[in-house]
Amino acid sequence: MIALLSGGVGGSRLAAGLYDLLGERLVVIVNTADDEVIYGLYVSPDVDTVLYTLSGIGDWERGWGIRGDTFSCNETIGRLGFENWFRIGDMDLAVNLLRTMMLSEGRSLSHVTEELARRMGLKCKVLPMTDHRVVTQVVTPEGPMSFQEYFVKREAKPEVLEIRRVRSPHERPAPGVIESLNSARAILFAPSNPILSVRPILETNGVEEAIRGSRAVNVAISPLVGGRALRGPADRLLRSFGYQSGVIGVAQFYDGLIDGLVIDRADADHEQVIRSKFGIEVLVTETVMTSRGAAKRLASEVLDFAARLGRVRD
Amino acid sequence: MIALLSGGVGGSRLAAGLYDLLGERLVVIVNTADDEVIYGLYVSPDVDTVLYTLSGIGDWERGWGIRGDTFSCNETIGRLGFENWFRIGDMDLAVNLLRTMMLSEGRSLSHVTEELARRMGLKCKVLPMTDHRVVTQVVTPEGPMSFQEYFVKREAKPEVLEIRRVRSPHERPAPGVIESLNSARAILFAPSNPILSVRPILETNGVEEAIRGSRAVNVAISPLVGGRALRGPADRLLRSFGYQSGVIGVAQFYDGLIDGLVIDRADADHEQVIRSKFGIEVLVTETVMTSRGAAKRLASEVLDFAARLGRVRD
Repeated sequence: MIALLSGGVGGSRLAAGLYDLLGERLVVIVNTADDEVIYGLYVSPDVDTVLYTLSGIGDWERGWGIRGDTFSCNETIGRLGFENWFRIGDMDLAVNLLRTMMLSEGRSLSHVTEELARRMGLKCKVLPMTDHRVVTQVVTPEGPMSFQEYFVKREAKPEVLEIRRVRSPHERPAPGVIESLNSARAILFAPSNPILSVRPILETNGVEEAIRGSRAVNVAISPLVGGRALRGPADRLLRSFGYQSGVIGVAQFYDGLIDGLVIDRADADHEQVIRSKFGIEVLVTETVMTSRGAAKRLASEVLDFAARLGRVRD
Repeated sequence: MIALLSGGVGGSRLAAGLYDLLGERLVVIVNTADDEVIYGLYVSPDVDTVLYTLSGIGDWERGWGIRGDTFSCNETIGRLGFENWFRIGDMDLAVNLLRTMMLSEGRSLSHVTEELARRMGLKCKVLPMTDHRVVTQVVTPEGPMSFQEYFVKREAKPEVLEIRRVRSPHERPAPGVIESLNSARAILFAPSNPILSVRPILETNGVEEAIRGSRAVNVAISPLVGGRALRGPADRLLRSFGYQSGVIGVAQFYDGLIDGLVIDRADADHEQVIRSKFGIEVLVTETVMTSRGAAKRLASEVLDFAARLGRVRD
């Protein structure tokens, strides 16, 4: 069994590649720190991106939402004079309506996610990191704003001074998360934003401890290509939070947690520095997943890399 | 000022005709006993039909929803294996989402309706009969079912043994309802289903008393044409609830409440019986509103009829 810690776009693509190789032997543990209530709906962007991408209905290019979706509802909200910068497609709305409805009936987010995954025909487990609500606020020079206001409305452009997360002291990982980490042969960190997507999963009560205590081979896949994020602010945020720029910052972020790091050919210059400075193995390959086929190829290389590391360690 | 008590299709059409003549001098008091929570959304079908028809975005033929709307969300709900017999279009969803969101923020239904009406550019008042939740259950030979289950899913086909309404003992009419009835020059009963749409308004605490106590001329417009409802079960329900069949049943229903009844040419045979038996004036005309122009013409005749009755009474 292989566990993947994932955010949205990049993570969901690698998840799809892994799913094509592993099927039900894959468990995806997904960031929910971006979740927000929008138009009264409980929106869980990373969970949906993973569900849509795995089930093949996702819009691969855009990286969110459902392929071929329309935006009649969203445009009508705008025509009625309400803010509509958070775009939810009409088909996407169905999923968000059903999720919100099931949550309001008292079901947990993990239960609802399992139900949605099943109805989309998925055989692997997709687990939200926790069933507890995590609220993220981003503090910028313009003041504090909600995560989606920062990320979607302001296109992640403002400088980030601080990220405030409100998490319940009673928070626990969702059912299955710790069990998966304990029994996984490999724990993979998806090419997602380390600060915005991976850290909130690691900060879920008990998750980092479970990873450190597991016998799994731990491998991270760098989200940077030539030192820059393909989309989103991963590179800027790593620097803002005191990490070195480029792929070295990624290695720093995962220092002590991983046995190996997968980096893009465009960052090959840093291979030796990472090996010697962090004492981990490095795989240099093509990490940009332009298609599901490319994702499957990368997933295969990552699994081979993890298997080699496992044998080396034994 | 003219007050109209209205249900959905027929009522909204007459409302549109009156609006074109009266503008802000019209107040529409709308049935909310059909309201239900569907897909977690607070749906107020008669209120929306009135808003859409008045503002000109409604689908005149279909009698509900927005013209040119698509049903991507609704179809997706079905594809995910959930019941989707209650069809809400994608544009229509925007209104229902916004209503539900504003209600969950603690605003009243009348406040939300006013806001939606304003944003749709309406100048007249559209008032839900009450801000309190009214729950309607229809008892059929197959057992009890929710109103929309009876009306939409089962297309109003089952025999109705009983209509159960749960209403709060603290229920009051929405702000403006009693004031409008007190100050109206004429109170009109729309060609809506007397049992399903008009009665719930009359049963709202204080409404029937206000109508009986007002100095207005009261005129009802029969929803039957040749003894049959144009759509829906109005004729069958009148009989089930002990009224005579056809337009005589309509006169019976409004007995003691109205000064005049407008009936269709197809029911002209009953004109004299109604006059003599119920002691009211009768206007025989073309009541089928096939277009907004036809609705305006009927509205004009109804207003003239009410004015004549007012002069006769003075």
